[in-house]
Amino acid sequence: MPQKVRIALDAMGGDVGASVVIPGAAVALARHPDCEFLLFGDQARIAPELEQHAALKAAARVIHTDVAVGNHEKPSQALRRGRKTSSMWLAIEAVKKGEADVAISAGNTGALVAMARFCLHMLEGIDRPALAAIWPTLHGECVVLDLGATIGADARHLVALAAMGSAMASARLHIARPKVGLLNIGTEQMKGHEEIREAGDMLRAMNLPQLDYIGFVEGDGIGKGAADVVVTEGFCGNVALKAAEGTARQVVEVLRGAIQNSLMARIGYLLARGAFQTLRNKMDPRKGNGSVLLGLNGIVVKSHGGTDAEGFASAVGVGYEMARYDLLTKINQTFNREGGALASVPAAQEAVS
Amino acid sequence: MPQKVRIALDAMGGDVGASVVIPGAAVALARHPDCEFLLFGDQARIAPELEQHAALKAAARVIHTDVAVGNHEKPSQALRRGRKTSSMWLAIEAVKKGEADVAISAGNTGALVAMARFCLHMLEGIDRPALAAIWPTLHGECVVLDLGATIGADARHLVALAAMGSAMASARLHIARPKVGLLNIGTEQMKGHEEIREAGDMLRAMNLPQLDYIGFVEGDGIGKGAADVVVTEGFCGNVALKAAEGTARQVVEVLRGAIQNSLMARIGYLLARGAFQTLRNKMDPRKGNGSVLLGLNGIVVKSHGGTDAEGFASAVGVGYEMARYDLLTKINQTFNREGGALASVPAAQEAVS
Repeated sequence: MPQKVRIALDAMGGDVGASVVIPGAAVALARHPDCEFLLFGDQARIAPELEQHAALKAAARVIHTDVAVGNHEKPSQALRRGRKTSSMWLAIEAVKKGEADVAISAGNTGALVAMARFCLHMLEGIDRPALAAIWPTLHGECVVLDLGATIGADARHLVALAAMGSAMASARLHIARPKVGLLNIGTEQMKGHEEIREAGDMLRAMNLPQLDYIGFVEGDGIGKGAADVVVTEGFCGNVALKAAEGTARQVVEVLRGAIQNSLMARIGYLLARGAFQTLRNKMDPRKGNGSVLLGLNGIVVKSHGGTDAEGFASAVGVGYEMARYDLLTKINQTFNREGGALASVPAAQEAVS
Repeated sequence: MPQKVRIALDAMGGDVGASVVIPGAAVALARHPDCEFLLFGDQARIAPELEQHAALKAAARVIHTDVAVGNHEKPSQALRRGRKTSSMWLAIEAVKKGEADVAISAGNTGALVAMARFCLHMLEGIDRPALAAIWPTLHGECVVLDLGATIGADARHLVALAAMGSAMASARLHIARPKVGLLNIGTEQMKGHEEIREAGDMLRAMNLPQLDYIGFVEGDGIGKGAADVVVTEGFCGNVALKAAEGTARQVVEVLRGAIQNSLMARIGYLLARGAFQTLRNKMDPRKGNGSVLLGLNGIVVKSHGGTDAEGFASAVGVGYEMARYDLLTKINQTFNREGGALASVPAAQEAVS
């Protein structure tokens, strides 16, 4: 990698586009001065935003395009209309051409997954992409995947998710051999779907040097920090993440409503606001913003569409870390060294014999 | 139903048994004086607890048994060892014999599901039991099922879950036609597994008088109160519930830790403690304790094993409501009136034509 981390941004992605993406990039640049940016999108909307951020302007190049992927376009439609022309495509293509180390978009998830797959292709030995997010735990963070890039998973795909997730965790958390758990409805070995038990048997039998398989983790184990990486198929991962995010918001909303109902409580809140700030810092969904699209020949990060500049800066930070700490090399090491093992994984019964 | 609601309790169930079950029953009796209790278990452990609760003692009869199902016994093992003899079995059997209107246990979930199924049998037209819980929302409560009585579901089973869940919601929430949503990873009709889309088509086509099908609900829609009943298969429901419970605890724990770190915040907490009490009242997992085992010829309620007397009282309250407001009649009405329709539901394509 060159000395600078080169970040390609879809400046049109998300609910509002440039007015969040550009200030977000500026915040990220202040945190990571060793970045430079390629900004893809409508010059007329990007330029005025850039005028507000001199440092970013100096570290960025704008590549104009009129075409933007709509938030409600179907993936097939987005590909037809936006291939080779849209800001989303061009950002991804910059990674493919070697002009950027990572592409980041807050746009339409389905379109992003489809375009990234189409443009970058899958890594050898990996069939399907996965979306992985950073989840706050009581003691720090963990990586959870898949969050819905695809749904359903056989044992082999779960094992691939475990390997990719641990590469991401080691880039993010700087752990050499992350603890990996499979999400299940109980921790006993007899629990859950056949494919999960089989994946557990395979991971135990393979005993990979890149990850430490610790067994099954239940839904409440994620936030407890039971593992550094929690693996599940995309449907369940998506539901779990949204249920948890919804609950965190709900708790805060109930508390806020109750505080506003009483003068005494409002005074109490003022005195305790440092504690509430700590809560926000630890549980702020904006801090976990930035899911990594794994399994591709290149790094792509998806930001929430509805986030603000602070949230978008977090997503840029995730992209920066994945590029700086060699996510792809880490994944390739696992799949090259263990490629044979991962590709021709024996059936569970053989694996545990 | 006779004037009193007759409740059979497995006094040995849960992490500690009688010392939670008996005080919990006493709290529930104070709330619902029109109850009477059959207490199954070890007389030597029940009697001293009962001595502390005169009103309960007057409203209860103890039926002694030495046998209790262990928390870690496999269902098959529990059935072999505890059928006809264990406190869990005898409580369920009291419902079968018509001596009680509802059975409640804080014991081993797998054993409870297996024994209830074996003893009471499934209702006609329903293949598999389901566990349904009450989930706090921003505006009140909703019913979520299945939480893991079984895993996986085809479209027909999802439709049966919708019908049973809405009967439970109408008994709990006193709504004539509860709003029912299917849990999915997006609200667009093209999203998710085939069987979920098919179940949605079927529910729309059937247009049952007992429920108002509103479409797909995402993970964060549950706590927002998007529907009165949220339907999913057992694996995903179990993971979502535990992820949400874990997150609620995590938020409170982070906040508590932050408050304790600062004197000012501790003073603030004292002033705002009414607001924290409101939060506890609304989000207290003990208040939602008591999952209903649906689909059987009789009402069985499962309490968390690790709950306290207050939590066990909530589970008794759920059982009371289900018996008092005729859960079984409501389910049977749906399945008798729509029995043909539910049993011979046409394929989705036909249903929506």
